[in-house]
Amino acid sequence: MTDFAATKAMFHLPKGMIYLDGNSLGALPRAAAAAVASTIGDEWGEMLITGWNKAGWMALPMHLGDRIAGLIGAEPGHVVVGDTLSIKVYQALAAGLDMRPDRRVILSDSGNFPTDLYMAEGLIRALDKGHELRVVAPEDVADHITDDVAVLMLTEVDYRTGRRHDMVDLTQRAHAAGVVTVWDLAHSAGALPVDLAGARADFAVGCTYKYLNGGPGAPAFIYVAPRHAGQISTVLSGWQGHTAPFAFDLDYRPNAGAERLRVGTPPILQMAALNAALDIWDMADMADVRAKSMALTDMFIKGVEATCPMLTLNSPRDAQARGSQVSFAFKDGYGAMQALIARGVVGDFRAPDIMRFGITPLYIDEGDVQGAIDIISDVMNNRLWDRPEYKIRAAVT
Amino acid sequence: MTDFAATKAMFHLPKGMIYLDGNSLGALPRAAAAAVASTIGDEWGEMLITGWNKAGWMALPMHLGDRIAGLIGAEPGHVVVGDTLSIKVYQALAAGLDMRPDRRVILSDSGNFPTDLYMAEGLIRALDKGHELRVVAPEDVADHITDDVAVLMLTEVDYRTGRRHDMVDLTQRAHAAGVVTVWDLAHSAGALPVDLAGARADFAVGCTYKYLNGGPGAPAFIYVAPRHAGQISTVLSGWQGHTAPFAFDLDYRPNAGAERLRVGTPPILQMAALNAALDIWDMADMADVRAKSMALTDMFIKGVEATCPMLTLNSPRDAQARGSQVSFAFKDGYGAMQALIARGVVGDFRAPDIMRFGITPLYIDEGDVQGAIDIISDVMNNRLWDRPEYKIRAAVT
Repeated sequence: MTDFAATKAMFHLPKGMIYLDGNSLGALPRAAAAAVASTIGDEWGEMLITGWNKAGWMALPMHLGDRIAGLIGAEPGHVVVGDTLSIKVYQALAAGLDMRPDRRVILSDSGNFPTDLYMAEGLIRALDKGHELRVVAPEDVADHITDDVAVLMLTEVDYRTGRRHDMVDLTQRAHAAGVVTVWDLAHSAGALPVDLAGARADFAVGCTYKYLNGGPGAPAFIYVAPRHAGQISTVLSGWQGHTAPFAFDLDYRPNAGAERLRVGTPPILQMAALNAALDIWDMADMADVRAKSMALTDMFIKGVEATCPMLTLNSPRDAQARGSQVSFAFKDGYGAMQALIARGVVGDFRAPDIMRFGITPLYIDEGDVQGAIDIISDVMNNRLWDRPEYKIRAAVT
Repeated sequence: MTDFAATKAMFHLPKGMIYLDGNSLGALPRAAAAAVASTIGDEWGEMLITGWNKAGWMALPMHLGDRIAGLIGAEPGHVVVGDTLSIKVYQALAAGLDMRPDRRVILSDSGNFPTDLYMAEGLIRALDKGHELRVVAPEDVADHITDDVAVLMLTEVDYRTGRRHDMVDLTQRAHAAGVVTVWDLAHSAGALPVDLAGARADFAVGCTYKYLNGGPGAPAFIYVAPRHAGQISTVLSGWQGHTAPFAFDLDYRPNAGAERLRVGTPPILQMAALNAALDIWDMADMADVRAKSMALTDMFIKGVEATCPMLTLNSPRDAQARGSQVSFAFKDGYGAMQALIARGVVGDFRAPDIMRFGITPLYIDEGDVQGAIDIISDVMNNRLWDRPEYKIRAAVT
């Protein structure tokens, strides 16, 4: 049984703040500062260039990948960390399209995070072969999995509504139609149990600065199923994905498996912070995290709805059907969120009218949720955003 | 006049080590630890998501770009920091090819760092339009600038030999033939004066963990000439390059100028270290750095050649024709470099037989160079690498 009081004690949380935006940037693991300081002082400072071997820097992308693999049901050795989520989306999409050279459609939904769609647009422009990015409503995806689709690219949990796709079912439908799947786990990894191997996902990508608490700009990860790993094409064929990067061959020869999805020199300071953050996950059982997340989000919805009739729930009411965040629609949502932040309840605003709150059981408990409900009720019922002292600059992401 | 004793005092250098590998990973600026600790504790820890605005994280890619612009003769607002050098090469190459849709050749040389060539190969494979990567010997580049070439992609200073291309002359020849230029400044930025605007370079890329001392895995930079900035295509069209990233549009609309070359969420901890490293460059005049670099490399070559006849100089003898590093060829170079590292002189080895030494005037002085010469002489003349106690594991990059 996960001891959530113990996990909460591993984080630094600002005094007087109830932080409900860990779905955007996770809170600071207390151990991260010392881990990064050691990487800077003991490794960079003392080992200098030899740190790549002596301190194990070169192995970090796969080491961290293996740690994350354990959280998303991936086979060890098939997740690698690096770059940004946008870049990893591009790699997965390019490899997926290459597996279906006779098809021309990337299917996605309007609930996908925009950068996934943008990266697809850029890839399509570059390929210049008449590919189409077909974007449908989230609830219509299943009906659009047809045999002209090359790649189905979906974010499992909608960044705005928290609506959750059925990964197992949609992957099965995709495979039945010969479609390659790319799952974006940005709002899943660390939020709920994911079973990539069980779902027979082809590719998955995700970021580590949200629920995994890797810090601002922490690197992304990418997964490729073992059955594809040795065959995939690598459009971003950087030297770190070469089978012998230090041979300095003039020609690219991809490394085996997922490691070929490395590109350039990995960001070691960010990785030190992420490594420390992942230590906390060793204390947690994902089933417990999910159970607590569902209980807390249910409590939050019930409490807010009981006192704030002006807010309209914008997330699935059924906890099973959503991730670990709750959104409400409200026409003055931007100002209301500013006022909430000024009062110490930090969520975020998403255009045009969405107030979004992330619930992260590793460091958010019942007391926090009740405290947030009380403040939200006060702000909403007294229209505090109309008062000048509550008009602060809001969080941006 | 640059006070090099003062700049040296800004670095932490391990006791008993003469570090001649700053061309691979720059030494640790003393201020980096505190800068990163503050970013972690005061910003990430206390501001959390609001750090993107309050702490200025969102502006760091352009802020750091402007600081680097001053070191490479670029116009302010036209350098942006992020990703890895491999990714930035890909962006520049893709944009360059897009500017010459009727041409099919990328011209480069065999002295280019392999990842530049690999990224070109990957892009060519993805485009699948019959492009050719034409790799010639460094001294033959000028003769191969013909009107079938779309992009000339060169690393100004050869990573192995230190040989320096004539950027002004080759850019002029390229433009005369209608060729777009992509200059890789990996071994130039911080090593010697660069005048991108004066040379009328089209694109430039570089890394910040070598002479700029940004730390292991510090992000790369990219420059686009003002005359192109508003027109270039962005194949890696991530949300941070969108004109309104927080509008969350479903369609990509590129930001103005260089900022469209941003891709994903920037690595804030790495950027904090880089920002601290760049403070030291405010104390230095690049002309002074170059003058001292030429004097020290001359002294090093002279001293080594006087005592080590078995070593063959593999760098240009004329200081004007080389960067800030010196290479010698030696058939037992791998073992010899291991022994040197064991004796505290850290250079690196590059296959098949190159012993490479970087001279970084910000923290390497005459005393260091003389000390290195003495130890190299001892190691080489007494064949210390044949003794078991000197067979240590060598630096890798």
